This record gives sequence, structure tokens and C-alpha cells, in this order.
Amino acid sequence: MPSVRKQPKSGKPGELELLAQIRARAAQTPHPGLLLGIGDDCALLRPGDGEDLAVTTDLSIAGRHFRLDWHPPESIGHRTLARGLSDLAAMGARPVAAFLSLALPRNLIQNPKARSAREPWQSPKGRESWLDRFLDGFLALAQAHGTPLAGGDLAESPVPVADIVLTGAVPRGKAMLRSGARPGDLLYVTGSLGAAAVGLACLTELGAAFARTRPRSRLKDLPRIPPRLKALLTPHLYPQPRVAQGLWLAQHSLSSAAIDLSDGLSTDLAHLCQESGVAAEVDAAALPIHPAATQAQALHGGEEYELLFTAPPTRRVPSRIEGIPVTRIGRIITQGQATPLAALVTARGTHPLVARGWEHFS
Amino acid sequence: MPSVRKQPKSGKPGELELLAQIRARAAQTPHPGLLLGIGDDCALLRPGDGEDLAVTTDLSIAGRHFRLDWHPPESIGHRTLARGLSDLAAMGARPVAAFLSLALPRNLIQNPKARSAREPWQSPKGRESWLDRFLDGFLALAQAHGTPLAGGDLAESPVPVADIVLTGAVPRGKAMLRSGARPGDLLYVTGSLGAAAVGLACLTELGAAFARTRPRSRLKDLPRIPPRLKALLTPHLYPQPRVAQGLWLAQHSLSSAAIDLSDGLSTDLAHLCQESGVAAEVDAAALPIHPAATQAQALHGGEEYELLFTAPPTRRVPSRIEGIPVTRIGRIITQGQATPLAALVTARGTHPLVARGWEHFS
Repeated sequence: MPSVRKQPKSGKPGELELLAQIRARAAQTPHPGLLLGIGDDCALLRPGDGEDLAVTTDLSIAGRHFRLDWHPPESIGHRTLARGLSDLAAMGARPVAAFLSLALPRNLIQNPKARSAREPWQSPKGRESWLDRFLDGFLALAQAHGTPLAGGDLAESPVPVADIVLTGAVPRGKAMLRSGARPGDLLYVTGSLGAAAVGLACLTELGAAFARTRPRSRLKDLPRIPPRLKALLTPHLYPQPRVAQGLWLAQHSLSSAAIDLSDGLSTDLAHLCQESGVAAEVDAAALPIHPAATQAQALHGGEEYELLFTAPPTRRVPSRIEGIPVTRIGRIITQGQATPLAALVTARGTHPLVARGWEHFS
Repeated sequence: MPSVRKQPKSGKPGELELLAQIRARAAQTPHPGLLLGIGDDCALLRPGDGEDLAVTTDLSIAGRHFRLDWHPPESIGHRTLARGLSDLAAMGARPVAAFLSLALPRNLIQNPKARSAREPWQSPKGRESWLDRFLDGFLALAQAHGTPLAGGDLAESPVPVADIVLTGAVPRGKAMLRSGARPGDLLYVTGSLGAAAVGLACLTELGAAFARTRPRSRLKDLPRIPPRLKALLTPHLYPQPRVAQGLWLAQHSLSSAAIDLSDGLSTDLAHLCQESGVAAEVDAAALPIHPAATQAQALHGGEEYELLFTAPPTRRVPSRIEGIPVTRIGRIITQGQATPLAALVTARGTHPLVARGWEHFS
């Protein structure tokens, strides 16, 4: 509309120029399954014969999923893509192509050299725009998982919003659903639990302390973060989706149901039970809690991106899949009116495991 | 993160409840190509043997693509989906599934009955939330094009943002690209040009007049819009994507290149010429200008969603496709350093046709 449709002005990058830059950065070696990437009305995908296509979308919004004054742009780019890749992992799908829609304030798009005011995210790479650094993080993870950026959209918005779409291929009938768990199945989780929640807690503390002591500065002005603290922050800033583990599980038709722990174990286990029409018991003593985490962080911390899956008791589940430990943490039971959807079994008895993870609009 | 992760409170719909409502509304009769819709980590699509999958994403942002105080929610829902369907039409793809990511302020999600303040969009259907009415418009157009809503995301945001993802199937090798135009090809357009720009101009006038005379009210408080004005507004509020015409063109392998007029003829013709490495001449006298529109509105008005396509001169192009007129408006010529990418041929000579349509960040 007229109020927002502007004539080109010289000296500032237009949408076309920016898209051309992103297109150049996204250009990769030919990828099986992607016929046509950025530049036309649509991208064109060609799944292999006998393959289905998995599609997932995830919103990331400033103030809700990340904070411009806390998270480095590379982390926000990484986390945006990780959310989508983790959904593919939970279906056992091989990534085919990513689509990224970005709504950003103008100052995050322009090269900071062109501006006089110094922005918090300008340091330490002063010559790159926030968008450049976002794409650094995004494309590094994309390359690690062989996922080309095949399209998307770009628009101006007062509040930064990223929407990530991931497409993946899975052999027909092999996709792992949330709805396949049956009473008697055993419950497993990859990796350890609670590390992302520890990282978020550290970031929160750090942000609050920094705001107190240097109120006019921002967290990312910190010249150097001690290595030990960095190690604690990393699982939150740069979570690793379990794509290889999901693929392995689907290829071996091992799991009866699977979900990723994006909302936290207590919430995602409830999702899985609801979709399967079953209930579950979790053994507190069996939980692979990260050494720095509390039991509560392991049970309710979100954005962990480990896989939670079930398998029939007759199937042998290895103790490691593609280098990541796998732990049996409980079992699936029949859903009953008197029993909770999920329960935590401890030495002192069995207690309802109430979903306390991420839920918007609540 | 803690500042945004809230515990469930009774009496307000949580994300899960809202998703369950949307899932119930989206449930349709089984759709060929969609194996699994809302409710799992990913949706699952199964294109037919010998079909490729087209994917497109489009952002719609309050203040840029629509205004809450001007556009009825049904129109915003319709327009959100129309943008994606039009991209499929331009490739000649049959819609398979839509994915909708919505970032909305809380007051647009809640039932207005639960609030004391009266919102401008509350009238005339006081019992529905803004989101309900958005979905009314979205799902009506989806049903008209046999397009199931197969997934998406929902989150809270101070600024309303909708991201639409459309997937479509097209027989292998039949997709219409922007890059196939060759010198000598003739240039065609569906429908008439400028009607959407006229509608937008009317809406702008109406909004400004209303703000002057009743500054504390909003446009949508207007009890009744005269039928003649409504007819002028409709092409902007409820544009019709040319899905059937795109399908027909692809099935008949008639066009060498195609694009939809989402950014306006002058801009989209430049896109097509750039991707094809050619130039174009448009005959001013041949343009099918809408009776209410000016030549400038026909040349530069965006969000029109007609199809612009090229065909070799040896191919016979019908005067109507699936009920919509088709007009020859010019020709493709060789790109030269001295000649403009696109030119307008009038009785008084040939002039450069400068792209003056939509471009963000410019």
C-alpha cells in the first residue's frame, strides 16, 4: 500500500540487492532432491522414487524465542534452523531444503559502517550487518547437515521475526510418528537432559548482572567469556539437532513413536501420549541428567532437541546411535481415567509428571 | 526463556487449545498428496509418481502488507493465502497443502466477548475473535482451491505477522520458470490490469476520509459500504489467484516463461527479463486496462495476481483460458547494453518502462 511502498533511493540496499546477496551466499553444490532454488516463483523439489516429503515450520520471535541484547546473531541463525532440523530428525527424515522468511527492522539489515550509532551486536565483527552474522550461523549449521537454502521471503518489520520451513525426504511408510506408541513399549531418550536449560539460566544471570553493573552496555559487549562459562552456554546458544540419530532410527524401523524435546520432556511426553492414546511412566533414577543440571531442568527444560522415542520391548536398542548415548528412561502403559498421562517413578513412590514446558498464549 | 515462558492460567486459551481449534477447522476430506496434516512434528506429503514439488513462502506484515484498521480480518486471511496460491499458479502447480505461521498480539486471538474494550474489527461478527475471522477468509479460499491447511506455527508477537507456505505438485519438466523466455516470443497477460490498484486507492481514500471525520472510529465501523464502492474494493480485498489458468498453461506446455503480477507489471516483467537474459517491449495500446484504472495503475499496481507469460510465436494462444481473457501485450527481444530491460511502445515512440512496483527496503 502507498504508506509502505517506497521508491528506490540510492545508497541503500533494496530488497532485490539483498536477495541477490543471500542467493549468492546460499548457492551450493548441486543437492539431490533440489531442482531449483532461490530466484523463481517457487523452488522445485524432487523426492526420490518411493519417498515421502516431510514439511515443518517454526516461528522465532524477538522477545519470545531470543533476545537481541543477549544472543549473538550467529546463535539466533543457528537456533532458527536447529528448530526445523530437529522436527525432521523426529520424523526420521533426510533434510532436502530449507526456506527462511525474515521480517527485520532496517537497522539489522544495513552494514553498521553506514551508520553512526554503535549497536550492541556490532562487536566483535564490526564490518558485518546483523543479517550477515545471522546468516553465518544459519548457513554453517545448514552446511553441516547438507541442507541448501532454497527460498524464503524478506520484509521490513519493527519486531524481528524468523520463520523457518524445512523439507525432508523419508522412505514411504518409514516416517516416525507421535501416534505409534503402544502399552508395553519402552521409552528412550538420546543424549543428556537439562544442558540447554542450564545454558539459558547462565545467560539470564549474565544478562541481569551485566544490566546491573553496566546498564548502558549490553551482554554482547563482554570482551571475553571464560571457557568454562562458554561450555555451559553452548548447549543453549548452539543446540545440535539429532538428525543422524533420527535417520538411523527410521532406517532400522526401530521406534514405534518419536518426538523431539523442543518443549521439554514433560510437555513433549504428554504430546506423544495424547497422540498415541497411551500413558507413560518415567523412572527418575534412570534420567540421563546433565552433570550441571537439576532434575527439574532435565524434566522441563525446552529447546533441548534430544529425541524421545518408544520401541517395542522385543527390539534391541543400542546404547549409542551415531555416537550419541541412548538411555531407557521408562515405559508406555495403558491410559486410564484415574492415572495421569505421565508419571514420575521415584524411590518414594509414583507422582504425576505435570507438563511444565513451553506453551505460548497461556 | 523465563521472561516469556509462562505457566498455564485458567480461563485463557493456551497454545494447545488454540491449535486444537485450528486443527478441527482445518480438518477436511482426505486430500490426494497429503498423508499427514496438523498434529505431528512434520506434515507428510506424497507427490504422485513423476511429479515435482513446488514450494513458496510469503510474509504478510501489519503496516506493510495490510492494516488492522482498514482491512477486514477475512480479507487479510484471504490475501495471505492468495499470495502463495498465485506463486503456485505462476509455476503451473496444483496446490497440495498450505502451512500457516501466525505471530499475533494476544488481543487478536481472544474472543472479544472476554474483553471489555470494543475493538474496531469486532463488528459485525461480535462473537468471533480476529483470528476466527482471519481463518474464515483463509479457509474459504483454501476450500475453493482444494488446498488443505496441513501445518504451521502460532506465537505471540506485538506486531501481527503471517507467513504462508504453499506446496504444489507439477508433472516433471512441466513447471513454468521465469527463465525460459527467448527473443521472438510473444508476451501475454491474463485478465485485466489495474483493478487491485484502484481498490487500494479507494481503501486509502476511505480510510483517510473516515479518520478525518470520525477520528476515534475506524474504517470497519462503517455500517454498510455502497455496492458500487464494494465492487471497486473487491479486487484489492479479495484478489483471485489464477491457479486454473496456470495449470492449463503447464498442462499444454504452452508458455516458455511465466510469473505472477504480485509486484506489478513493470517490476515483474523486469524480473522475468533478468532471469531469462532478454528484454521486452510492451504495446501501450494493447494493455487490457481495467475500465476504472489509469495506465499507471495498470503498469505499476501490485498484488494483482494475474499471470504474465511468454509463448513462441508459432504457438496458438487462446483468447480465454478457463473463463479468463488472455491478451497479447508485447514481445521479447534481445537484451542490449543500450536498450532498456523493458520498454513501452506508444504512438509517440518507445520509452523505457521503469520498474516502479513493490520493493522492500528501498
